[in-house]
Amino acid sequence: MTGAVNHAGDCDRADAALARAFGVLGKRWSALVLGSLRNGPAGFRELSRAVEGVSDSVLSDRLSELTEVGLVARTVEPGPPVAVSYQLTPGGQALVPVLTEISRWATNHLPADKS
Amino acid sequence: MTGAVNHAGDCDRADAALARAFGVLGKRWSALVLGSLRNGPAGFRELSRAVEGVSDSVLSDRLSELTEVGLVARTVEPGPPVAVSYQLTPGGQALVPVLTEISRWATNHLPADKS
Repeated sequence: MTGAVNHAGDCDRADAALARAFGVLGKRWSALVLGSLRNGPAGFRELSRAVEGVSDSVLSDRLSELTEVGLVARTVEPGPPVAVSYQLTPGGQALVPVLTEISRWATNHLPADKS
Repeated sequence: MTGAVNHAGDCDRADAALARAFGVLGKRWSALVLGSLRNGPAGFRELSRAVEGVSDSVLSDRLSELTEVGLVARTVEPGPPVAVSYQLTPGGQALVPVLTEISRWATNHLPADKS
């Protein structure tokens, strides 16, 4: 009985963590923004070009959210000219191999858009 | 030059796959519904209880979408009584270890809700 209870507890915790992950990653563009930073720091313009279709205001919101939860770090070089760049924190970097797995899974198991 | 072009092409494909993955998994509850089926087939009521907070109509929508993209299979036992159950397809099952990775990553790197 204790075993059963523990097992249920493990599942609950796993589900809570999964819900937390998709609370962040499930927002449109978040995963693509993180993916775009996998090769190193980038400025806002670079990210805007790399994440096709995102508007500046949404990109700005996503970067703020990802910074807030500690996955992205924002660096300001005083300059002149002032330069702002974004890079993955260790937590963000730890997601990169997981994103690669998700991408591989989608390539193999999700049909391309029918449109 | 060819190398650079190929590299960019690989990234584009990876990003397209990632966008496709989060187009499906990014919808609220989708990942949790898939996670709830990891241990085997379940009926609608069971899923409704397992995925805490989801309404019946949203759960129904999510199951239709996941069935549509081939990650969940819906089985009708003619009965009586008629019994409908849902289970992961091979494509859905292939996602289970990836969901485990995401969950582990979130446990280690995403702060629990401050609320």
